[in-house]
Amino acid sequence: MTKQLSLAQGREYLAIPGPSVMPDAVLQAMHRPSPNIYDGELIEMMPALVQDLRRVARTEHNVAIYISNGHGTWEAALSNVIAPGETILAPASGRFTHGWAEMAIGIGAKVELIDFGTSSPWDFDRIADALRADADRQIKAVLAVHVDTSSSIRNDIPTLRALLDDLNHPALLMADCIASLGCDRFEMDDWGVDVMVSACQKGLMTPAGMGFVFFNNKAHAKRSRMPRVSQYWDWTPRANPDLFYQYFNGTAPTHHLYGLRAALDLIHAEGIEHVWARHERLATAIWSACEIWAEGGALHLNVTDRKHRSRAVTALHLSDGQGTPLRQFTETQMGLTLGIGLGMEDWDGCFRLGHMGHVNGQMVLATLGSVETAMAALNIPRGAGALEAAARVLAS
Amino acid sequence: MTKQLSLAQGREYLAIPGPSVMPDAVLQAMHRPSPNIYDGELIEMMPALVQDLRRVARTEHNVAIYISNGHGTWEAALSNVIAPGETILAPASGRFTHGWAEMAIGIGAKVELIDFGTSSPWDFDRIADALRADADRQIKAVLAVHVDTSSSIRNDIPTLRALLDDLNHPALLMADCIASLGCDRFEMDDWGVDVMVSACQKGLMTPAGMGFVFFNNKAHAKRSRMPRVSQYWDWTPRANPDLFYQYFNGTAPTHHLYGLRAALDLIHAEGIEHVWARHERLATAIWSACEIWAEGGALHLNVTDRKHRSRAVTALHLSDGQGTPLRQFTETQMGLTLGIGLGMEDWDGCFRLGHMGHVNGQMVLATLGSVETAMAALNIPRGAGALEAAARVLAS
Amino acid sequence: MTKQLSLAQGREYLAIPGPSVMPDAVLQAMHRPSPNIYDGELIEMMPALVQDLRRVARTEHNVAIYISNGHGTWEAALSNVIAPGETILAPASGRFTHGWAEMAIGIGAKVELIDFGTSSPWDFDRIADALRADADRQIKAVLAVHVDTSSSIRNDIPTLRALLDDLNHPALLMADCIASLGCDRFEMDDWGVDVMVSACQKGLMTPAGMGFVFFNNKAHAKRSRMPRVSQYWDWTPRANPDLFYQYFNGTAPTHHLYGLRAALDLIHAEGIEHVWARHERLATAIWSACEIWAEGGALHLNVTDRKHRSRAVTALHLSDGQGTPLRQFTETQMGLTLGIGLGMEDWDGCFRLGHMGHVNGQMVLATLGSVETAMAALNIPRGAGALEAAARVLAS
Amino acid sequence: MTKQLSLAQGREYLAIPGPSVMPDAVLQAMHRPSPNIYDGELIEMMPALVQDLRRVARTEHNVAIYISNGHGTWEAALSNVIAPGETILAPASGRFTHGWAEMAIGIGAKVELIDFGTSSPWDFDRIADALRADADRQIKAVLAVHVDTSSSIRNDIPTLRALLDDLNHPALLMADCIASLGCDRFEMDDWGVDVMVSACQKGLMTPAGMGFVFFNNKAHAKRSRMPRVSQYWDWTPRANPDLFYQYFNGTAPTHHLYGLRAALDLIHAEGIEHVWARHERLATAIWSACEIWAEGGALHLNVTDRKHRSRAVTALHLSDGQGTPLRQFTETQMGLTLGIGLGMEDWDGCFRLGHMGHVNGQMVLATLGSVETAMAALNIPRGAGALEAAARVLAS
Repeated sequence: MTKQLSLAQGREYLAIPGPSVMPDAVLQAMHRPSPNIYDGELIEMMPALVQDLRRVARTEHNVAIYISNGHGTWEAALSNVIAPGETILAPASGRFTHGWAEMAIGIGAKVELIDFGTSSPWDFDRIADALRADADRQIKAVLAVHVDTSSSIRNDIPTLRALLDDLNHPALLMADCIASLGCDRFEMDDWGVDVMVSACQKGLMTPAGMGFVFFNNKAHAKRSRMPRVSQYWDWTPRANPDLFYQYFNGTAPTHHLYGLRAALDLIHAEGIEHVWARHERLATAIWSACEIWAEGGALHLNVTDRKHRSRAVTALHLSDGQGTPLRQFTETQMGLTLGIGLGMEDWDGCFRLGHMGHVNGQMVLATLGSVETAMAALNIPRGAGALEAAARVLAS
Repeated sequence: MTKQLSLAQGREYLAIPGPSVMPDAVLQAMHRPSPNIYDGELIEMMPALVQDLRRVARTEHNVAIYISNGHGTWEAALSNVIAPGETILAPASGRFTHGWAEMAIGIGAKVELIDFGTSSPWDFDRIADALRADADRQIKAVLAVHVDTSSSIRNDIPTLRALLDDLNHPALLMADCIASLGCDRFEMDDWGVDVMVSACQKGLMTPAGMGFVFFNNKAHAKRSRMPRVSQYWDWTPRANPDLFYQYFNGTAPTHHLYGLRAALDLIHAEGIEHVWARHERLATAIWSACEIWAEGGALHLNVTDRKHRSRAVTALHLSDGQGTPLRQFTETQMGLTLGIGLGMEDWDGCFRLGHMGHVNGQMVLATLGSVETAMAALNIPRGAGALEAAARVLAS
Repeated sequence: MTKQLSLAQGREYLAIPGPSVMPDAVLQAMHRPSPNIYDGELIEMMPALVQDLRRVARTEHNVAIYISNGHGTWEAALSNVIAPGETILAPASGRFTHGWAEMAIGIGAKVELIDFGTSSPWDFDRIADALRADADRQIKAVLAVHVDTSSSIRNDIPTLRALLDDLNHPALLMADCIASLGCDRFEMDDWGVDVMVSACQKGLMTPAGMGFVFFNNKAHAKRSRMPRVSQYWDWTPRANPDLFYQYFNGTAPTHHLYGLRAALDLIHAEGIEHVWARHERLATAIWSACEIWAEGGALHLNVTDRKHRSRAVTALHLSDGQGTPLRQFTETQMGLTLGIGLGMEDWDGCFRLGHMGHVNGQMVLATLGSVETAMAALNIPRGAGALEAAARVLAS
Repeated sequence: MTKQLSLAQGREYLAIPGPSVMPDAVLQAMHRPSPNIYDGELIEMMPALVQDLRRVARTEHNVAIYISNGHGTWEAALSNVIAPGETILAPASGRFTHGWAEMAIGIGAKVELIDFGTSSPWDFDRIADALRADADRQIKAVLAVHVDTSSSIRNDIPTLRALLDDLNHPALLMADCIASLGCDRFEMDDWGVDVMVSACQKGLMTPAGMGFVFFNNKAHAKRSRMPRVSQYWDWTPRANPDLFYQYFNGTAPTHHLYGLRAALDLIHAEGIEHVWARHERLATAIWSACEIWAEGGALHLNVTDRKHRSRAVTALHLSDGQGTPLRQFTETQMGLTLGIGLGMEDWDGCFRLGHMGHVNGQMVLATLGSVETAMAALNIPRGAGALEAAARVLAS
């Protein structure tokens, strides 16, 4: 035995905050020959696919499908409703609002950014101040990241909607649900969200490569007033195509559509309310373990208040830069890959647990057990009984 | 036996001009769990992947990879070098030049389109006239579709380059090789092409969902002078990323990258010169059969002159609208799906044979044999000995 | 281009007489995690699977499933009904009757073999002589290979049954349908077959590794009188299990069962009568082409009379040992692998076309076209118009 | 939410004692077209495959591969060395020795069985008594189950060898390593094992359907003296074939061979010593947790002494028939399927954890965490700190 013993040989588990674990049914559905793109099954399955996407987003309105990643949907959404020179408001509680705002600058928008740091949710007072200050309604949209994947903050979108309504501000409410769709409760129509962007590789459990822009009539009215929308980003024909190729402005993402179909079947067989409840319970188990570990003084959760935490990802900090060694231990010794810290000052201290999409009780326990093992191996002080506390939550 | 006997039960063969037949190795490579996108194998395989892409395009210059279809690369390429108000010249010999030109209008460009119809290659005299008429060099780019998938015309790009050089016209030469890359000989650097766009689902044998924009220094110099390029389309970080996510402006198309890797392995194991020679020989066999069928008077090839024909797709016409019945016969009775006519006046008369990418001798013979069978079933007059003529070409 | 150009790069087609082409649905069904073998889906699907197997064999009687190949079912069948010292009659029209007879010797049986050579079906007069000579009924079974894969002879089982009945001979009629089940018409109950053996990798389109022994009450009565049957071969619990593991005498062939389920779904969706009719038509097309090639004097079909030919495999001979070069050409230049000759004197002259299971019109045309091409390349004299003759058969 | 919330939606984990978890590489390798069985890759890969099988068993001697399950290898092994009327000795410490002994009776052997119950290893004194009593050496073989899957007892084979040697008893030592090969240390040649049987679906991580009989020269000498060995079971040509089909007495298990190749690659890349050490560590972690749970009084391990426990499976008992409810909870609420009790009196109390083959740290923690959760849900008394104890073992 010249090399070191590893306990990682076995099924690998990638518990990063996306791409998430792909169900076997999704991968099987994608392992197939190219389909005809002019006639037959693929064309016929689109109306139900679109309807089932809407059901996940809880909207009766429109959805445009893009061959793109999540960043692509940022640009797509902005391109349909924000003209060069127009202003957007970006309340940031994590890295991704900054990214979306930069994209807005890239298309010529002006950005008013309110930075809440990396561990705090929106402060509605400051947002209200910004909106009130916008007396001549220059702000055309508010970019609202529902769950920030880097900070694991979950923002309160209904309250933002109420604020806009209270102030009678006409700005579009544009939500980024890339990390939350199919994980955290999200009700597009009930919550009054005008535009919502998401992607397929997290709660929708399909390999990265497809994005979605949902929009309501108010948003489409703004699009109709745009001086120009580039053809690839224009959501109009995509959402209401006369011909199949218009769904995608060209060739369809054939295999991804089969994968997404399988994923939507899983979601709706379970029921979206149950999907949310499952994520809620699993997240609560994770928090319970982490809060006990935190008693040891070395670990803390990035988001203090449970009600501001994502049900899909949990960002954690370890003192003394122990996050990186911990991740390396779980990957090389346990067969579990955790997420790196993103956008945090303590690069080596931060790590993230992904618990989105195709995740169940035994997977959460594998994750927590591996973290416990790594902390033991690294002699990191921690409270006792964390795993049993998680088990009790799952048992209840 | 209440239903009708069909001879189609068996392995289906989709001989449409894209998506093409996916090699088993590609589908196997994509049937895998999500990989880590922050560390490890996927990140490490990118430099060689990029280099092997360049080798297919015969360029030492840059390539930006997009999660998009071919239409997306049209917009991407234009967005990097054509500012609103600038002019492009579009010599069209088929539907797709029109499509690209419309995309240019969508980003605010002016388009000067020369229409050569649906069955003729470029007329260089008319192109020369247009360039000469552009005394103040308003034309910033010429959109040059190498192979038009609808008409199966292959245009002569080196001659266009020579023309630009002769006239000392500085317009960028932008080629669309979506239907030709990995099929017809294409030499980006030797031919002096400044920008080339392609996609993965034809000669590159990977499920639709990824596109490529190759560009040289002259093109990049123009991009550097652009007033603004949107972040998603900007090719700069994609072609020279500091971090992995910059290759894709966000989440990587994880499974597609594995698929493309497998496809490039196949191409380079065979050798790109051999790949071209194989397509040449297979196309010649197809033409030989079609030319003999044509002697019957009912069928004709859309492109008269062999030297203007694509090696990847062949558009054909049948009198009396017999194209649609023929396609229906091969699909329902033989297990072979052929391409519909696109952009032709005789919708029901036109059909297309795809012979791109993962295609070999026995597949071409299956295609031709099925067409012969369908013509027999439909009593379509045709010359005798077409299949044997094709066999002789393949045997030589 | 240092190496030689090959036109084989593309989808490979294995047209050998088994293993046959596996449908995508079968391979997909097998690409799955291990199932529970004590509870759930796998256990529950067995009764319908057994019933659907019976439907393919056209029997209301019993079937025992073995994890084995076809040879294993030979031994299994014999072990249940033939005791050491008992005699079997083996009328041989090809290599595989010899093989089965050797297996009988291996379990201690005496074998009376009548050899009809490699290109003739049974001569019923000689069989009748042998049965009549058996005045004291020492012959306990007649081994009847329905289709011999090596010679491509199809024997006439109903006539053999009638002969046994006419002579009032009580010997069991044991049929080997390994190469014919799901290809050539076979009616176990109507034809009065007592025992039938088959395997999964030919007409049943599932990767090799599973075999089947069907038996009726007369056969089981003989088994009940056996002094001893080894536990693994004993068909009794396998055909009428109290517990799931008894189907297989131990661990189930989990993934094969899913594959077979998918294959049976394909067969019964098409309808077994249609499956037979498809094979009949495809075989007729092949014969038509071969008979025309034969006019050139170099090629001949191993079986002269169409009514004695298998619908699943066709054995051919080329003069001057040209069979091997022809196979090498199709494999290395066309992407088509043909079957070698088995048990023939002219090893290098003989080759075989497989056309069993998942095979349709375009595949047969690929096979024939490739043979035509190879004959052209090798300058083998042949009649003209063979491919068009095949096309006419398929078109009718 | 009409139905009940379940936390099982997600990746299912089958932690039963075989079939075990199949590695992605194995399933991928099996998802392929049928290969040629007369020429090429499959034929060429056999010598290395056989050699790599030998390396797992730690033998320089012979191996015969059977298309069969483990039970088939029992019969195969016996058929080669035990003639009707000969005697075997079967010291039983679990259900499977009984099964093998019944198979011996099925081939006409006499069986002398010593039953040590379901929770005790061999008592060598009693075995010695039996061997000593066999003055005229009627006992031709001792059936030695290394690890009994039902009881999770691991027997001490080297001591049994020493006993035979001390007594100068010529009986063959025949080991069943179905549940131990590739998990528990096993050294065929060093330990003086004459015949060893195993199967592919446990430590060898390949879907059920292939078995192996290893044998040394002493065993083969006995086979040479056998009056008759049936052709399918005869190991002679399988172990030393002149032609490819002789490896398998007929058609090869094509897809399983590719799967096994991938599995052997994984094993030897890790190193068999490391494979054993990994299983040792993982089992120790499991025992540590179970021993703490046992302090609660409701649970106990079937095998008291660690040195008699398998590293591949752990049988446990819960009072009050709580085993079945516990299994049901983990399956329906956690996504983890555990093994039922086999051959125990307390059917509903017994359950088993499989930890064989493709298993790593995070999987063991998932298993233990799920059991903890189920015990919490069912209010089963248990010691505290079990999961953390397991983590400490894995961390060390």
